[in-house]
Amino acid sequence: MAATWLPSLITATPEEGFELAVKLSRVAVKMTQPSDEVRARLRPVYSEDPAALIASSQVVATNFQTVAAANHYWQV
Amino acid sequence: MAATWLPSLITATPEEGFELAVKLSRVAVKMTQPSDEVRARLRPVYSEDPAALIASSQVVATNFQTVAAANHYWQV
Amino acid sequence: MAATWLPSLITATPEEGFELAVKLSRVAVKMTQPSDEVRARLRPVYSEDPAALIASSQVVATNFQTVAAANHYWQV
Amino acid sequence: MAATWLPSLITATPEEGFELAVKLSRVAVKMTQPSDEVRARLRPVYSEDPAALIASSQVVATNFQTVAAANHYWQV
Amino acid sequence: MAATWLPSLITATPEEGFELAVKLSRVAVKMTQPSDEVRARLRPVYSEDPAALIASSQVVATNFQTVAAANHYWQV
Amino acid sequence: MAATWLPSLITATPEEGFELAVKLSRVAVKMTQPSDEVRARLRPVYSEDPAALIASSQVVATNFQTVAAANHYWQV
Repeated sequence: MAATWLPSLITATPEEGFELAVKLSRVAVKMTQPSDEVRARLRPVYSEDPAALIASSQVVATNFQTVAAANHYWQV
Repeated sequence: MAATWLPSLITATPEEGFELAVKLSRVAVKMTQPSDEVRARLRPVYSEDPAALIASSQVVATNFQTVAAANHYWQV
Repeated sequence: MAATWLPSLITATPEEGFELAVKLSRVAVKMTQPSDEVRARLRPVYSEDPAALIASSQVVATNFQTVAAANHYWQV
Repeated sequence: MAATWLPSLITATPEEGFELAVKLSRVAVKMTQPSDEVRARLRPVYSEDPAALIASSQVVATNFQTVAAANHYWQV
Repeated sequence: MAATWLPSLITATPEEGFELAVKLSRVAVKMTQPSDEVRARLRPVYSEDPAALIASSQVVATNFQTVAAANHYWQV
Repeated sequence: MAATWLPSLITATPEEGFELAVKLSRVAVKMTQPSDEVRARLRPVYSEDPAALIASSQVVATNFQTVAAANHYWQV
């Protein structure tokens, strides 16, 4: 049985939290398009498309809201 | 009578919470387009369209905010 | 005098809350396009357009955040 | 001197709160396009465009989050 | 040295808060496109484009959430 | 080893918080398109495209929500 890809929303630092937000964004894409081959084929298309890049940044921003709240904004 | 498809927002783990967020996103589509046949016909179109994949990821991110808050971010 | 279409944000269950979120999304459309005839004519167009279906799901997700918060996420 | 168009976010009922959310959405458009004549000319275009109608519903949903929170979700 | 353009998120009234939300939206555009000349050239284009007007209203709605929360929704 | 690009979400002022929100938006783009050369080539395209400018402003607004919450809206 595969280990969970999301054991926790808690991260040690804001930067790791941001990386987790990127991961959440990508896993959601993978759940709609599970084929590694198709996603690899699409990547050069959208990674040179400004609209797609900005939309990706929007998804990361939304997920980062969740991760930051879970970590109480990393305040001591 | 059909059992509810959404008995609770509470999940055991973050990963199950993310899967619930994906489910919420799909049920909303189903409520606008109830035909299984039409949705099945549309799937190959949008699952190879980067803009659609990113937009889907945005919906999941929004629903994950809700599920994560309901679960107090799975903090013990 | 017509009864209110939105007497409360409180629902008995999460599923009913989700249905309320769908209703809020549709009422907002109706306020911009009040003609039943026009909306009926547009429905077959957007209900077969993946981008429109995903955008609709996004609106529902946003409204569900509001309804879920109002109901304290249906936690006892 | 013109009276304020937004004296308060507090409304008596959820339905009035939703109407305020619609108003906030429209005022923001007016601030970018102040000409009544231009907005009147554009209305027949976007009110028959499903994508525009759904996008409008998204703006209302976002503003309704704000109004609902301000009113503590109209809970007694 | 230029004074700050954003000394505080606190405003005296909801209406001033909404105007601040509009300002935040415009400053973000200015940070991506700093040329006054280019922005002035683009304005007649997007101010007659319904999709752009609705998208602008969405940005204002998002910023107004932030300003309203900062002001505790202007509740006494 | 490179120092972290995101040591903290805390900033001294709202204006610095807004600049951090812009930075978060750009780093997310960089994570999808890491090539400095490609991003430099795309910049003149999207910086003259109203839709892209508004979408960028939306991402900044979302990230500013996070930064502002982390800083308790800079209230003393």
